[in-house]
Amino acid sequence: MSDERVVKSARHTELLELLDAFGTFGETEKGGIARLAASPADGHVRDFLCDWFRERDFRVLVDEVGNIFGVLDLMKGPAEKNFFCGSHLDSQPEAGKFDGALGVACACIAALCLQESVKTEGLEPSFRYFVVCCWTGEEGARFQPSLVGSSVYSGAKTAAETLAIKDSDETSLAVALDAIGYRGKDTIPKADQYLELHIEQGTELERNKTPIALVTNCWGAKKIRLKFKGVPDHTGPTPMQDRRNALLAASHGIVEVEVIANKTKATLYSSVGRIEVQPNSPNTIAEHVQMWIEFRSPDEAALEAAEKDLLKALDGIERETGCTAHISSTETRSVVTFDKTAIATIEAGFKAASIPFLHLKTIAGHDAVRLQEVCPSTLLFAPSKDGITHSPEEFTADEDVCAGFDAMLDALSNLIIGPVSEQYSGRQSQ
Amino acid sequence: MSDERVVKSARHTELLELLDAFGTFGETEKGGIARLAASPADGHVRDFLCDWFRERDFRVLVDEVGNIFGVLDLMKGPAEKNFFCGSHLDSQPEAGKFDGALGVACACIAALCLQESVKTEGLEPSFRYFVVCCWTGEEGARFQPSLVGSSVYSGAKTAAETLAIKDSDETSLAVALDAIGYRGKDTIPKADQYLELHIEQGTELERNKTPIALVTNCWGAKKIRLKFKGVPDHTGPTPMQDRRNALLAASHGIVEVEVIANKTKATLYSSVGRIEVQPNSPNTIAEHVQMWIEFRSPDEAALEAAEKDLLKALDGIERETGCTAHISSTETRSVVTFDKTAIATIEAGFKAASIPFLHLKTIAGHDAVRLQEVCPSTLLFAPSKDGITHSPEEFTADEDVCAGFDAMLDALSNLIIGPVSEQYSGRQSQ
Repeated sequence: MSDERVVKSARHTELLELLDAFGTFGETEKGGIARLAASPADGHVRDFLCDWFRERDFRVLVDEVGNIFGVLDLMKGPAEKNFFCGSHLDSQPEAGKFDGALGVACACIAALCLQESVKTEGLEPSFRYFVVCCWTGEEGARFQPSLVGSSVYSGAKTAAETLAIKDSDETSLAVALDAIGYRGKDTIPKADQYLELHIEQGTELERNKTPIALVTNCWGAKKIRLKFKGVPDHTGPTPMQDRRNALLAASHGIVEVEVIANKTKATLYSSVGRIEVQPNSPNTIAEHVQMWIEFRSPDEAALEAAEKDLLKALDGIERETGCTAHISSTETRSVVTFDKTAIATIEAGFKAASIPFLHLKTIAGHDAVRLQEVCPSTLLFAPSKDGITHSPEEFTADEDVCAGFDAMLDALSNLIIGPVSEQYSGRQSQ
Repeated sequence: MSDERVVKSARHTELLELLDAFGTFGETEKGGIARLAASPADGHVRDFLCDWFRERDFRVLVDEVGNIFGVLDLMKGPAEKNFFCGSHLDSQPEAGKFDGALGVACACIAALCLQESVKTEGLEPSFRYFVVCCWTGEEGARFQPSLVGSSVYSGAKTAAETLAIKDSDETSLAVALDAIGYRGKDTIPKADQYLELHIEQGTELERNKTPIALVTNCWGAKKIRLKFKGVPDHTGPTPMQDRRNALLAASHGIVEVEVIANKTKATLYSSVGRIEVQPNSPNTIAEHVQMWIEFRSPDEAALEAAEKDLLKALDGIERETGCTAHISSTETRSVVTFDKTAIATIEAGFKAASIPFLHLKTIAGHDAVRLQEVCPSTLLFAPSKDGITHSPEEFTADEDVCAGFDAMLDALSNLIIGPVSEQYSGRQSQ
């Protein structure tokens, strides 16, 4: 026992150092990071990760949309059985150092721990390979929508359509990945099971002083891209009644998106976080405004109702402003339930090891949601201070990082030593 | 007479060719131009203009904020008396080829006509020098507020504060002018009188089939820069009631700016044409939104009332959204009356030459407004089709360009051969 404790402690140091190292890439003056998908900073942290893998005998694979896989051979267990574990290293424009990075760092160190356990304790794992994943463009900040890389891996999107997605400067993901050298050609093995540790981005764990949560399901979402078209003209001489002001129409739209969420009896969250205005000059009436609308709910019917309410509101906005509204894309994400067998296995392990835990849901999408489409997938949450995220203020204390890691390692041990759920066999196309 | 007609016709060809040539710099696919102040395209059209001046024996002067002056010696008239005439060559982000460019091109050709008249007809002008002006950053599209160059010439702003103005990429006007080589050091002579021809940006001339308007006055304006501050967080898990969404606050603000103009009994125009959102990501609640508000009115009291109404509305928006509002700058422009003596002189000339004309006001600001602060200043309008401006659709037909030029030349002849108004003597500091 005392030996194990020493090893664990050294691994904790290694984990904290790795997490710190990730946080140096794209670091900002505010103490957070700016590491948009496939940006130079993202390229540098990827290089660092791949070097880290190679120095430790992981085989490095990169697929055509830039997902990175560090494959560690556990040297025992059924060949062709792969346990995937990871998260992402891209970030929002002004982000913290834990969202995504925590899950990748913990997966890296867990791989080493598991390899060591198998070797020194003579255990027989149910998987031969432990595959650490770093998914491309989880955030949806530079390339929309989010979950870019895991959506291609799961088969929800094709690589071709994904590589053609353009950022606001009209740079495609293909060009951006080429620029950082991460448009790979490797064939990726199929995932037989997946686990991801992520910060909670809420306050339940913190309030309950609990180190870990088992996430049971993920809210559904509707992501709508809406365009308003007006008529460009001079903001001075053009008579008020002749103006077709797309920014005014968009403002009514943003207010309506809020009203729809506030007036429904269902549980519904809504937001507009991004807007693009053209020509965006103080002296010219806006001609084009594009906005990114989100509705999120645990109730799929509420999402459908919200979309209908929006369409109805747009009719009124068109009449009032003389602008035209056009929905250019709608993406609907169903409510997702994570693998119950895995949850039961992990829960039994936590109880046996006296690890306190909560059951939570997730409102935000995570790569684990996409992986659940192809294999049993588990999402764990570690605490994040005050629930603040997508901000330089995002923070998880060292002790919470280490406690979260310990719980994750316990979960992995139980899943990898125990039998893998067979419910997904044959469903994966890759 | 037949001789004069031939010369005039050749000058028309020269004018149309010069206007076309200006339109090739920064030309866009939509058939308009994108020639933001001190951009590379603005640099290239300036180079072309300076070459044009030098080839025709104009002396070229550039002041410290990049205003260009082409000084033509009429070889007669009182030394130290300078007649200024011109407009601007910068544009909105997606603009037409007539706004500003028409006035510069007409001033160039008028200079040649006047020099020739003085020489061949033995006339005695009241000014020795005819100075063609190309003012920096009239549009306020890249560097706010508008009338950047003429405001420094008139003494309304200092060169130092103006050179420090930054665009949205944090590039200062000083750096941008250095990059195109137009941060000059020349001392500029004082203007004794000014005239500017501009497109109407309205439909009065077109509807009345009239080639020219004498502008009697300019509406006042209030230009307010407003910032909202919210709290960045994830658009998913953050509970609706905990959000401090600066984009929602800004949307309420934009709607309010419209409401203020629509509900007042006074004549008041309002707009928000530009907005900046940070971090502007679909998945992050907006932390900062900055917007550029304009109120315009012929009634200065209405502008003051509008500002008060806005402040009152901001209180409500702060309470409703939990964001804070902060006005970072307010610029008030008084109602301006153009020089009445000049108008009377020109009007008498138009009547004698049977040139039909209208009296109009201007709602948009023009460099002539700033020049009126230091010398008698005249603003003439030529027709613009359907009143569309700040758009690639902006258009003035060749015959309207030529008729406008003929009327402008008649006005200049009457002002330059007649006595200059003395009312401004001693008021100019430069």
